[in-house]
Amino acid sequence: MIMDRLYHDAVTKSPVCVGLDTDYAYLPQCVKDADLPVEDKIFAFNKAVVDATRDLAGCFKLQIACYEAMGLPGLAAFAKTLAYVRQGGSVAITDAKRGDISSTAKQYATAHFTGDFESDLLTVNAYMGEDAVSPYYDYLKGYDKGLFLLVKTSNPSGKDFQDRDMEGLPFYQQMAKKVAQWGESFLGESGFSAIGAVTGCTYPEEFAAIHTLMPHTFFLIPGYGAQGGTGKDIAAFFRDGVCGVVNSSRGILCAHKGKTEGADFTVYTRKAVEDMIEDIQKWL
Amino acid sequence: MIMDRLYHDAVTKSPVCVGLDTDYAYLPQCVKDADLPVEDKIFAFNKAVVDATRDLAGCFKLQIACYEAMGLPGLAAFAKTLAYVRQGGSVAITDAKRGDISSTAKQYATAHFTGDFESDLLTVNAYMGEDAVSPYYDYLKGYDKGLFLLVKTSNPSGKDFQDRDMEGLPFYQQMAKKVAQWGESFLGESGFSAIGAVTGCTYPEEFAAIHTLMPHTFFLIPGYGAQGGTGKDIAAFFRDGVCGVVNSSRGILCAHKGKTEGADFTVYTRKAVEDMIEDIQKWL
Repeated sequence: MIMDRLYHDAVTKSPVCVGLDTDYAYLPQCVKDADLPVEDKIFAFNKAVVDATRDLAGCFKLQIACYEAMGLPGLAAFAKTLAYVRQGGSVAITDAKRGDISSTAKQYATAHFTGDFESDLLTVNAYMGEDAVSPYYDYLKGYDKGLFLLVKTSNPSGKDFQDRDMEGLPFYQQMAKKVAQWGESFLGESGFSAIGAVTGCTYPEEFAAIHTLMPHTFFLIPGYGAQGGTGKDIAAFFRDGVCGVVNSSRGILCAHKGKTEGADFTVYTRKAVEDMIEDIQKWL
Repeated sequence: MIMDRLYHDAVTKSPVCVGLDTDYAYLPQCVKDADLPVEDKIFAFNKAVVDATRDLAGCFKLQIACYEAMGLPGLAAFAKTLAYVRQGGSVAITDAKRGDISSTAKQYATAHFTGDFESDLLTVNAYMGEDAVSPYYDYLKGYDKGLFLLVKTSNPSGKDFQDRDMEGLPFYQQMAKKVAQWGESFLGESGFSAIGAVTGCTYPEEFAAIHTLMPHTFFLIPGYGAQGGTGKDIAAFFRDGVCGVVNSSRGILCAHKGKTEGADFTVYTRKAVEDMIEDIQKWL
């Protein structure tokens, strides 16, 4: 089961999720100057990041928006990167926050769990309710796939709706209850469900209530680094043991900026992941 | 301003939005048998549908999930179809329901308002609050683009969260209030904002309250036909005049099924749009 695998890798390697949210501007000059089509430059950069960090990283997450923004060549690089991450034995998460009516959700499941864009886990937005989520269920049991549903997002405006009172609880807690309930049918050996949740590490105080409402849920925790989250914040999440992976993107992908534009850039990439692991572990 | 253009086309042509949610299975045998790569078959089908309905249709909407499900060739066909719709002078809506933190929303704005996937209007999910929406604002004023934000979706499970009480109102009404407020800065000559809203025609009774809360909002109204909505339902939306476009996808794209697999399939496509216009107009 995919969440068992992810839990295993988070414990044996680290709970660091390397965010491959690649913007062309992040590429060091040596990669930009390579005599390659754009899609292969982007893939070459991603491949180098994966090679430099695979033994340390619990998983890799690709934010599809970055690739969509580069058009068709970007999505070709996205497909190649997903395949490279998965063929090397690492868990891949596609951060696409899809959410739509059931016939459309079926198409998204096909898109992200088979074919060119096959990934292991997909982030989903459940504003539209359970029938925007249930079309993925067949893939959870039959194809070893999983989901991360948005509960409490890392951004400042998350509070516009998520923190407001809905029938006696903040809306994000009502969402947490529903997501936990949907996940009960998909528990693995590790005790975690194939339906996980997204909870930003920028809101460590809110996590206690979320964790109580969803004891069998594994978390994708964004917001570390560039968004302001720290190792101390993560400590609140991992008080009872590792129950999620912590994503950092810009802090890792741009670690070489101002230091080198050469092929040695991955020294800084790897160092950024090592530093992040140390920052998290010192609070555990 | 894009919403002025859309309003104009909805009034002068019709409020029908032809949903190009193309699944390979919908193609008639004559197109499937053509000696073309898959992406060109899909585009050939879409082009034929656009050619057969352009003078009748207020706009065209592409559900990106259908194209993502076909992988890279699907997205190549998506790009070609968007360009064909727009170059012929029709308004194109990309139904992608994107919603993410501000740095990511910026990438989505680049993705869908420039380059390979340039569209006129994009559907967005505001579960994450205003900073998931505001990165698009530059494009509303400077580049003649627009948004449709999800308010009351057409699917049965929409009620899981949207109908629940949030601080004294159903959540969808709280969403309606926020969306209307965000839209006030982007009003056009027609009186409508460049920020529109999605409200399913499967919930005509809920529309009265929504319309009162958002008097300057133009609506994208899904749910007609295959999802159960009828011309009678639409009458509730258009009581005070045309204030939106009504999408139908499967009812139009599959109109030829069981009748022909030949090049005359567009006779049935066009007839489906004519019938839909008649069904809406008889109640107005």
